[in-house]
Amino acid sequence: MFEIFEKYLTERIELSGGQLSLIRSLTAENKIARGALILREGEICRNIHFVIKGLLRLYRIDAKGNEHILRFAKENNWISDRGSYLSGAPSAANIEAIEESIILSWKKADFDLLLKELPAFRELMRSLSARIHIANLERLYSSISNSAEEKYILFIEKDRDICNRVPLYMVASYLGVTRETLSRIRRVSINK
Amino acid sequence: MFEIFEKYLTERIELSGGQLSLIRSLTAENKIARGALILREGEICRNIHFVIKGLLRLYRIDAKGNEHILRFAKENNWISDRGSYLSGAPSAANIEAIEESIILSWKKADFDLLLKELPAFRELMRSLSARIHIANLERLYSSISNSAEEKYILFIEKDRDICNRVPLYMVASYLGVTRETLSRIRRVSINK
Repeated sequence: MFEIFEKYLTERIELSGGQLSLIRSLTAENKIARGALILREGEICRNIHFVIKGLLRLYRIDAKGNEHILRFAKENNWISDRGSYLSGAPSAANIEAIEESIILSWKKADFDLLLKELPAFRELMRSLSARIHIANLERLYSSISNSAEEKYILFIEKDRDICNRVPLYMVASYLGVTRETLSRIRRVSINK
Repeated sequence: MFEIFEKYLTERIELSGGQLSLIRSLTAENKIARGALILREGEICRNIHFVIKGLLRLYRIDAKGNEHILRFAKENNWISDRGSYLSGAPSAANIEAIEESIILSWKKADFDLLLKELPAFRELMRSLSARIHIANLERLYSSISNSAEEKYILFIEKDRDICNRVPLYMVASYLGVTRETLSRIRRVSINK
């Protein structure tokens, strides 16, 4: 499965055979069963992951026991709890495989080594990080400015694939609306 | 006013006299009148700013003419529309001085030069960027998981100073709640 990641990399940056070998030597491949957690609330997030196949979610559980999904990660997406990963503090989040998934994983020390040794890889991650930052701001903007219906329409426009792959209650939990509100919106949309 | 920024820097990183001179030579100081815009929707954000004194807000206006505040920036905060700044695309946002403010500003090319030439400065900005990323995720989490009342309480706990410096309608616009809802919450909180 490293070949898929190699393709992902070489479509974006130039790497020598030796550099690819270095990356490969530090990469672990993991198959994750549907419903399994790769990070549990209270643990330190010590790894960063790249999704080869499948779909995962990063979510938190509030004091009332409700789940709130911060993000989905599908094929060619990166996932970690960045706060815990960078600070070494216990995570407030869980990462769960919604589908049976294949992921590549790196320990933080190994990933830091790659960032240090490979300037092109570092630049790729820097640019990705800037894009994720901007995407988060857009989502925050949508969250404070849009109605529940607008949020839903935006989500199916931007992430139709994910919308089709996850149960409705997860869509509601991602959008920050109740299931009842989401059902009402969907009935109205279908009847339009 | 550069002395205030110099103090900010030297409390965080080690810089030689020559390095500080380089930074100073590329820094512009600007006084911004209350209500003046330093970025207008449709313009490209070509500068990054550091607030020496005062308070600014980054906001967008939606199709219905409503303002939505993405962030406030007070003393010792950085501000730009990062998406537009990094991509060179026109900004969807405005940056306005809520109070008369003094800011330091750098053109992107000059700031990029500083990042390139000064590893400690680059590392400081990288670490700040990671913290802002995490703060944005926390705000997103609050936005999707908390009630309007919880959002308000969290805001006054974390940003009481800003809460005291801005009109109520801006607090509502920052939290993504209506003014009516915010007034009701405040009445209830006061009576508790």
